[in-house]
Amino acid sequence: MSKVFQTTASAGKPHVVIVGGGFGGLQAAKALRKAPVEVTLIDKRNFHLFQPLLYQVATGGLGPAEIAAPIRALLKRHPNTRVWNAEVIDIDPQTQTVLLHDGDRVNYDFLILAAGSVYHHFGHPEWSLHAPGLKTIEDAQEIRRRVLLALEHAERETDVERKHAWLTFVIVGGGPTGVELAGALAELVRVTIRGEYRNFDPAATRLVLLEGGPRILPTYPPELSEHARRALHRLGVEVYTGAVVTDVSTEQVQYQYQGEIGRINTRTVLWAAGVRSAPLAERLAERASLPTDKGGRLIVNPDLSVPGYPNLFVIGDMAHYAHQGNAPLPGVAPVAIQQGAYVARVIRNRLLGRPTPPFRYRNKGDMAVIGRKAAVAQIGRLRLKGFIAWLAWLFVHLLYLVGFENKLLVLIQWAWNYFTRNRRARIILYCFGHDSQKNSPPGRHGSG
Amino acid sequence: MSKVFQTTASAGKPHVVIVGGGFGGLQAAKALRKAPVEVTLIDKRNFHLFQPLLYQVATGGLGPAEIAAPIRALLKRHPNTRVWNAEVIDIDPQTQTVLLHDGDRVNYDFLILAAGSVYHHFGHPEWSLHAPGLKTIEDAQEIRRRVLLALEHAERETDVERKHAWLTFVIVGGGPTGVELAGALAELVRVTIRGEYRNFDPAATRLVLLEGGPRILPTYPPELSEHARRALHRLGVEVYTGAVVTDVSTEQVQYQYQGEIGRINTRTVLWAAGVRSAPLAERLAERASLPTDKGGRLIVNPDLSVPGYPNLFVIGDMAHYAHQGNAPLPGVAPVAIQQGAYVARVIRNRLLGRPTPPFRYRNKGDMAVIGRKAAVAQIGRLRLKGFIAWLAWLFVHLLYLVGFENKLLVLIQWAWNYFTRNRRARIILYCFGHDSQKNSPPGRHGSG
Repeated sequence: MSKVFQTTASAGKPHVVIVGGGFGGLQAAKALRKAPVEVTLIDKRNFHLFQPLLYQVATGGLGPAEIAAPIRALLKRHPNTRVWNAEVIDIDPQTQTVLLHDGDRVNYDFLILAAGSVYHHFGHPEWSLHAPGLKTIEDAQEIRRRVLLALEHAERETDVERKHAWLTFVIVGGGPTGVELAGALAELVRVTIRGEYRNFDPAATRLVLLEGGPRILPTYPPELSEHARRALHRLGVEVYTGAVVTDVSTEQVQYQYQGEIGRINTRTVLWAAGVRSAPLAERLAERASLPTDKGGRLIVNPDLSVPGYPNLFVIGDMAHYAHQGNAPLPGVAPVAIQQGAYVARVIRNRLLGRPTPPFRYRNKGDMAVIGRKAAVAQIGRLRLKGFIAWLAWLFVHLLYLVGFENKLLVLIQWAWNYFTRNRRARIILYCFGHDSQKNSPPGRHGSG
Repeated sequence: MSKVFQTTASAGKPHVVIVGGGFGGLQAAKALRKAPVEVTLIDKRNFHLFQPLLYQVATGGLGPAEIAAPIRALLKRHPNTRVWNAEVIDIDPQTQTVLLHDGDRVNYDFLILAAGSVYHHFGHPEWSLHAPGLKTIEDAQEIRRRVLLALEHAERETDVERKHAWLTFVIVGGGPTGVELAGALAELVRVTIRGEYRNFDPAATRLVLLEGGPRILPTYPPELSEHARRALHRLGVEVYTGAVVTDVSTEQVQYQYQGEIGRINTRTVLWAAGVRSAPLAERLAERASLPTDKGGRLIVNPDLSVPGYPNLFVIGDMAHYAHQGNAPLPGVAPVAIQQGAYVARVIRNRLLGRPTPPFRYRNKGDMAVIGRKAAVAQIGRLRLKGFIAWLAWLFVHLLYLVGFENKLLVLIQWAWNYFTRNRRARIILYCFGHDSQKNSPPGRHGSG
């Protein structure tokens, strides 16, 4: 029943298959536009997602469509590229084939693996039920639903302790995602909703950020970590560093802090700690005996190919690249984008018989935003904080949004929300169908 | 375990309970702002929905947040009003209590029932699996998902007949919703996606509108129905009137047309025919022996109360009001809004011991939009069509959107999409969790 799609069907050009339409995969496809190749980009989703703003969807500041764009629309003027909405479940580097979820196979001459990363609950997959991560639009909608429903429960709960648990929000992980999410969440539950509830005071909400390491934003200079901590404190977020989560259940988070066990009664735990490579990396590693790091990422050669398979490239969050003697590159958009462009160059050069110098990452800076008008940024040797860092952050996001036809509109909308403190997208959506748990408004049954 | 919420707890003011935060319920709450009453608005959703633009969400023109606003935000400056996110499952007019889904009861002195309507598949609930209606945001997302996935399937399907079935879209019902949906869908699959797919031509898509009655837009003057039919025809929609659907399955729609049975092979059927009152109306009717019409709507007195219960009012899609000797009022937003305001006036007058003249609907006009820059409108004796009707439609929607803080932004965004023919919100979302059928991209398993 299943088919094999031949690579050389059209005009005999080499076939480049790209797995994933995130920052890396999309950039690779764009950079191959004029190359003498046929490109197939395969993604299980039909849209490219601007992940850095996902926390805004989770906190009702933006709607999903404002940070997503259909991959087909982005690549429509690339006549050498076709887009397939399918999931790649296996790769056979011997026969140069990828296997799709429906049994079809696709042959490749060059393969670019760019399927990103997934959340990893410290080896406790069961925690993910109680503490959703923030990787997909659905994750963001789930977080938004949980946060908003917690407020609705609190409004109707008459028991003081239970009410307090509904008004307590715990974020696990003090990297950029955790910090940005904590800041936006604090604005939502302490500022935006003022005047909207009759039975609790937004000032009574409690927000806790738990970070296992010695400081938040560990990849930033200590001075900026400290600034971020103070900014979160001003927003009413309690930040605990050196606090390692040891258990998560429906009603409680347990953590170890300075040798003691701490417990927080809460109905809402959000996970922003520990990602690992998409499972496809480990499947490939097993099959082809390729080395991975402890995050499941494939260790790549200086040209981003994997050992023994010069035509198989891995980029972005799936790749471990540490060839300048430094720590592996972080899983951020600029790394993926530069790697996508680089691999396209390698392929073009190969077809011309030319060599390509090893990949080099040009770090243009890191930034994190902590609530309204506060941010930290490191751009080269420059370290910014406060309002000026926030402006830099805004500017960079405007630049990155290039490629979205209506980027200006999105930015106006977003800035409007930001300045008016309005979070219009505070709508609770459920699954279509009849899942009773997910389709119910808050209530006493099953909630306490 | 369950509680009864007393009405006279605060300041001894009469307690008005409003069930539903749609056009009618919201208007009633707003109009009671300065009345000497306590108001509780109960809705199972946390947002007010601008239903007339729902078809734009279904076809990727707008995101959900652009046509929804949190009810709490809309009523935040109403200190006499509290909002409860709960579902009312029963009403006892003897004890003047409503029962919530979680067992709690709420007493009322006045009750305003405004829970709207639901789709009705001609007594064939099983058809709803194959032919979703368009009432909720989730419905709109489901329709968007089905339409976009059908195109993805078509792109990969190699069998000509199966491909054609994926590219055939059938809309059942020729009222305003069916007509607007057909127009927007035609633009989406025949215009917007041009250049994005490699394995089919958008011009090869087939759109069919099936209407059981003798003409589409039956409540409009015949001249405008005819104009609408021609406008749909220009957009490539086949319109069959007098075609009654007799069966709907996964792969086919069957209908009776001029005494013959017709069949259309299609994977996408959308339902825009036949609504009936929310089930709560019939539950109340049984319990209190109240008369309903065949659509399950409660037949109301000239002051919109129900017979025997002067403090129980029914408005909007749940009410059958025909006291001017005419046909019952249609289930449209202006009727609900005027009824909401009227009932608030009746309550205020009652508290002052004053009578209120019977409700009178002031019809300010009907309009429907058929694709880009084409519309039909009837405003008093004025009948508009084409571009000028479209401008009138735009203006009226701008007016109606009043109350949404960022209405101007929404309109700019929407007009931008409209003129550029871009439909940015073409993203396929799935349910959170592990429902394999809903979380899979298109494929050969289970699809042919």
